[in-house]
Amino acid sequence: MTLDMEIICVGNELLIGKILNTNAQWLAKRATAVGIAVKRVTVVADEVEEIASAVREALQRKPQFIITTGGLGPTFDDKTLEGVAKALSRKLEINEKALRMVKEKYEAYARKRRTEKVELTQSRIKMATIPQKAEPVANPVGTAPAVRADLDGTILIALPGVPSEMEAIFEGTVAPLLKQASGDSAFYEKSIYADNVMESTLAPLIDKVMHDNPGVYIKSHPRGEENKPHIEIHFSITTKDTEKPEEKLQKAIVQLSSLIGKSGGQSL
Amino acid sequence: MTLDMEIICVGNELLIGKILNTNAQWLAKRATAVGIAVKRVTVVADEVEEIASAVREALQRKPQFIITTGGLGPTFDDKTLEGVAKALSRKLEINEKALRMVKEKYEAYARKRRTEKVELTQSRIKMATIPQKAEPVANPVGTAPAVRADLDGTILIALPGVPSEMEAIFEGTVAPLLKQASGDSAFYEKSIYADNVMESTLAPLIDKVMHDNPGVYIKSHPRGEENKPHIEIHFSITTKDTEKPEEKLQKAIVQLSSLIGKSGGQSL
Repeated sequence: MTLDMEIICVGNELLIGKILNTNAQWLAKRATAVGIAVKRVTVVADEVEEIASAVREALQRKPQFIITTGGLGPTFDDKTLEGVAKALSRKLEINEKALRMVKEKYEAYARKRRTEKVELTQSRIKMATIPQKAEPVANPVGTAPAVRADLDGTILIALPGVPSEMEAIFEGTVAPLLKQASGDSAFYEKSIYADNVMESTLAPLIDKVMHDNPGVYIKSHPRGEENKPHIEIHFSITTKDTEKPEEKLQKAIVQLSSLIGKSGGQSL
Repeated sequence: MTLDMEIICVGNELLIGKILNTNAQWLAKRATAVGIAVKRVTVVADEVEEIASAVREALQRKPQFIITTGGLGPTFDDKTLEGVAKALSRKLEINEKALRMVKEKYEAYARKRRTEKVELTQSRIKMATIPQKAEPVANPVGTAPAVRADLDGTILIALPGVPSEMEAIFEGTVAPLLKQASGDSAFYEKSIYADNVMESTLAPLIDKVMHDNPGVYIKSHPRGEENKPHIEIHFSITTKDTEKPEEKLQKAIVQLSSLIGKSGGQSL
């Protein structure tokens, strides 16, 4: 059985198209690589009710993992933990361990800048204010700790939105957890390209090959136009290494290539 | 009142991190520019039930517009219209106008390639099979028509996933519709950069300026580290030109710059 994940990205900058959602792609790729199936990505605004709804809805679908990105910083519009707390009907509270993490960061900054002690203002304490019964996760790159909450059947992890921080925490803490959960499963993929065959001609051929090769998923991506067809055909399988995934992909590729040839197309 | 939009992107390739969701960013930017507020982006797999759920949930939130991308092509995994039909409890049927659009495309392809007539196979007819009472929208670039369904309070438009096709249909058909709906509203934005002031120091200053400048939204984006602060501060407002948006943004920028100066930082 594959384990499911949902990704919830928080940030107005994503909803006004100011930035590309590279975090979602990065997380989806890394989770897929270790054998987890990402079922949904949701992007919502920096609003408590929006975040809470997205978390509540994701929880109802019972994925094994929910990862949120963004909204953990010190400013007024960093509202992810408030939204998560609301979705879980838990209070926010200053977490002593998180406060120590934040405090140590600012003490280190003060030492480096040779300035006086950096005061623990309200904005800074905010980064250590997390939902009850959740655990802070150390942030090796930035200031705001990540947060982990173990819920009924679902582990929710809130990561920062700054890519370098998100990636460091994912690799250090989340990836090992996912790998352990998925056993030895991994994602295997391979693409071939077909020329001179229209996607609409290819459609029934792909149907047949998927039917004959259980577990192998095939998807065509037109790169030219229907009229001047140049089509990427992507083969993938999520399974354990002992199940000979490479062989399974190769068998499907050989069969489809032969069918494409018979239809007057070429594949490489 | 701002009009709301939700974007639903369909495609396994997005959920395995194979591609970046540039369509969502492009649509969000264009919709925002013409005064529409994008409230949510949802990415789901090429599965009828997943698509239907996402559409159903979006409809319950009653946005004025829902745009879907992807899943209109001829292959087995192009399931968007099936999902939309399911969400609307409508049947799929071959639409005569859509069938004419598809037929004309293939006739033109056949002429260009000087081959015999291209047969209207099942895969090709599929692209003209749309939910009852929906309208096909001509695709000037590719083969599959887009689809528009006018529902109770919400207009749903299904666009293709190929960026050149999606963009052409948006500019030709969707943008004029959105502009008309939003009146003369538009999105105005400006960024400044602050150095030598930590984001956590900036937080209460931004609070104050937003409070003093109703309508202006301000968000800080750390580009350095909390320790070596280089922060983009993004000011935006959605309003009609007659409301002097540029002046309003400028007033907020001047006030915040002055507060940053008083805190020992610099802004440019």
